[in-house]
Amino acid sequence: MAKGLPKRSENYSEWYNEIVKRAGLAENSAVRGCMVIKPYGYAIWEKMQRALDDMFKATGHQNAYFPLLVPKSFLEKEEEHAEGFAKECAVVTHYRLKNNPDGKGLIVDPAAKLEEELIIRPTSEAVIWNTYKSWIQSWRDLPLLINQWCNIVRWEMRTRLFLRTTEFLWQEGHTAHATEAEAIEETERMLGVYATFAEDWIALPVIRGLKSPSEKFAGAVDTYCIEALMQDGKALQAGTSHFLGQNFAKSFDVKFVNKENQLEYAWATSWGVTTRLIGALIMAHSDDNGLILPPKLAPIQVVIVPIYRLPEDLATISERVSAIVAELTSRGISVKYDDDDQQRSGWKFAEYELRGVPVRLGSGMRDLENNSVEVARRDTLTKESVSLDDIVDHIHALLGEIQENIYQRAFKFREQNTFRVDTWEEFKQQIERGGFILAHWDGTAETEEKIKDETKATIRCIPLDAPEEFGKCVYSGVPSNRRVVFARAY
Amino acid sequence: MAKGLPKRSENYSEWYNEIVKRAGLAENSAVRGCMVIKPYGYAIWEKMQRALDDMFKATGHQNAYFPLLVPKSFLEKEEEHAEGFAKECAVVTHYRLKNNPDGKGLIVDPAAKLEEELIIRPTSEAVIWNTYKSWIQSWRDLPLLINQWCNIVRWEMRTRLFLRTTEFLWQEGHTAHATEAEAIEETERMLGVYATFAEDWIALPVIRGLKSPSEKFAGAVDTYCIEALMQDGKALQAGTSHFLGQNFAKSFDVKFVNKENQLEYAWATSWGVTTRLIGALIMAHSDDNGLILPPKLAPIQVVIVPIYRLPEDLATISERVSAIVAELTSRGISVKYDDDDQQRSGWKFAEYELRGVPVRLGSGMRDLENNSVEVARRDTLTKESVSLDDIVDHIHALLGEIQENIYQRAFKFREQNTFRVDTWEEFKQQIERGGFILAHWDGTAETEEKIKDETKATIRCIPLDAPEEFGKCVYSGVPSNRRVVFARAY
Repeated sequence: MAKGLPKRSENYSEWYNEIVKRAGLAENSAVRGCMVIKPYGYAIWEKMQRALDDMFKATGHQNAYFPLLVPKSFLEKEEEHAEGFAKECAVVTHYRLKNNPDGKGLIVDPAAKLEEELIIRPTSEAVIWNTYKSWIQSWRDLPLLINQWCNIVRWEMRTRLFLRTTEFLWQEGHTAHATEAEAIEETERMLGVYATFAEDWIALPVIRGLKSPSEKFAGAVDTYCIEALMQDGKALQAGTSHFLGQNFAKSFDVKFVNKENQLEYAWATSWGVTTRLIGALIMAHSDDNGLILPPKLAPIQVVIVPIYRLPEDLATISERVSAIVAELTSRGISVKYDDDDQQRSGWKFAEYELRGVPVRLGSGMRDLENNSVEVARRDTLTKESVSLDDIVDHIHALLGEIQENIYQRAFKFREQNTFRVDTWEEFKQQIERGGFILAHWDGTAETEEKIKDETKATIRCIPLDAPEEFGKCVYSGVPSNRRVVFARAY
Repeated sequence: MAKGLPKRSENYSEWYNEIVKRAGLAENSAVRGCMVIKPYGYAIWEKMQRALDDMFKATGHQNAYFPLLVPKSFLEKEEEHAEGFAKECAVVTHYRLKNNPDGKGLIVDPAAKLEEELIIRPTSEAVIWNTYKSWIQSWRDLPLLINQWCNIVRWEMRTRLFLRTTEFLWQEGHTAHATEAEAIEETERMLGVYATFAEDWIALPVIRGLKSPSEKFAGAVDTYCIEALMQDGKALQAGTSHFLGQNFAKSFDVKFVNKENQLEYAWATSWGVTTRLIGALIMAHSDDNGLILPPKLAPIQVVIVPIYRLPEDLATISERVSAIVAELTSRGISVKYDDDDQQRSGWKFAEYELRGVPVRLGSGMRDLENNSVEVARRDTLTKESVSLDDIVDHIHALLGEIQENIYQRAFKFREQNTFRVDTWEEFKQQIERGGFILAHWDGTAETEEKIKDETKATIRCIPLDAPEEFGKCVYSGVPSNRRVVFARAY
């Protein structure tokens, strides 16, 4: 076991930071608020990208790439959007450095001041809709279904590895449609893609819902989201899909000739998920021994550690193992055989536990003599002896079982930490203990803000599948006809 | 044929611009010098990325991600490096906008001025070597073999789609080694990877060589490159691999304990290729009808166009075609069946020719009655009738043949446009006609500069396989012992 990893129950926040660091996922860089994503963390992101990208393409989207830099005047065009992002913009004002005439080093060349400042994209609606103006003339050009994978900068004051960083990686889909109904359908379709990805790949159960007006994306008509519950009882927004109405089309004058031969503004959506998903993955599943990775996203799914004293025994073990490695690889399972002789097997066991490798095989001479191998599961920390005759089928099935088990565990955790609350006293008590609170709300921004001020709880979403149920707002007592989800959130 | 595409022989530059535009590869954005890479162009980049990434991983590299923003003081640390990039840096000076108190819109908030300016990375040696300081302590930490895929900004004054843009996409490998020999071996290995990729995937023959000291990367000891010849006789640098010696290790104080238990500075390499490769691909192979794509990088390898008059004929054709599509797809061939009834087949033929799809099948009722289909090759513009019984094997083989043919064509073109030149008069005449010139050079920067001033020709490289051959510098007459490659270049 990794010595000194803080316990979740004692210091959840430190536990998270230490896992990120010790498992080699990421670290803070010398640049304020920006992280370095280390190879092991980036390998998880690559797996996420591949799976999501396949899903985007299967739903008809194509990738493209738009400029990093956004002229200030573009950002200003959609008023709410400008308002929402102005306070966190990194601004490029000059395009050249020169030697410092007064001494060593470089200074900004005052002669190279830009006429108009450029903003590093905090999101790309502005630059993309400015481009769409020339791409969209007729209903035949629609729908336009584009995605881009890129980096984003938002000047955050309080940052946290993966969860909130000044620069982060993401994908942003930007689509244009001929009708309002089609755009809404697309917004909901992509929310569905995100929910499927979260549940099937990250093994993370999510609630699909709508944001309240005060929590929606700056410039959107409606923001849909998926919300997940972390092990400390706090909520995490894992993805958003926005119905933008005709707001950006109007700001950037994107009109098309519809089937009735009339000029009309295009209807828009945008949707994104970020490297924050890696933070969600860590916080949802891991334990006091370290990371627990869902097999579908694990860079290494199976590790094999030889257990031996004599060098000739290692040779015997390696020979037997190489056949297993070849067969696992041919089944599409990523496997690492760690025969590094600089480290003891006990150290390796702890290391792969810390790094969340789903399945570990320990292979010693006695095992081989018995035609068996010891199989350890990372999710349950249980071990069993398995015959070498069945080992590949066994592992294949086991990876599926682990994927399902960690999903079920997270699902059960969420069930046990979701509470229907009907009084304000109860609400205040429950919010201190964490979890999702299902409560009635009167629908006003005033009440929402007062609840936030008094308890730090926000409305995570209005669930799409919330049944109609008459009740009274937990705060104001005003009648309400459905419960919404409250929680403290990341 | 695409109406009005300029001829290469009349206006090569316009021909290039028009292909980029009409084939839907990229366009200029509203942001000075930055391009929008459109879906078809980006799909080529994705194919390049996938192939290169597989090659990087096969040679032991892992991907990671480092910050976009580089503190000015980091850039200053390696003097030559600072000097080389200072003049093209986009500088972030502020981190917030605010409402304009004097009217509408947003202004830069003067209260949000950064203490130290941040540069948008023009390359990442500085930020990465600052990070490596904490990653490298012992020879056991080496070699460190890291790559990143990202965007780069260099404030270019004269830009050209794909070939030279202010923002571009690339990969940059940054490795650290325990010995000089290992670092040089890595530099050469990655040059080899680039050469293999250029030749096997882009079908682009390249010369592997060393840059002259005045053309090397700012901060490198040696810059290796691959150089290709375009159809207008100009050279294009298609990739570089740098041996950085201990320059960055010294600037960022990256020391490790070697096997002899002594502290030593680490040895470094860096290497990169960019979206410029798409420009190289276009200019090397395409013709007056449009783009010609090497099958291995073509987003659509085969297009099938139904030829019919009556709707019921389309149904018959579609049914027969669907089996071919399924079989081609199962063989890993990307195929598009274009049954759009809004366009005539003649229009489609020209369109796919313009877009460089390697193989086109035209399927009409009479063909089907004869159990055959018309197969057109984009590279030779020839057509033949092929039996439906053999069609899938035929196409599979044909794609390989086209890949090889366009490589051979480019190779032959280069052979025919490479000239051994021994006198200055001859040099001046030949450079006007274009091509690679193999000539003796006295090895001095003075001569190199004078040749450049008088002819606009630069030394593209000193070929790695150049045989020893005694001669006299074409300009100064001073003795020289090998020929170098001169050309005018992009």
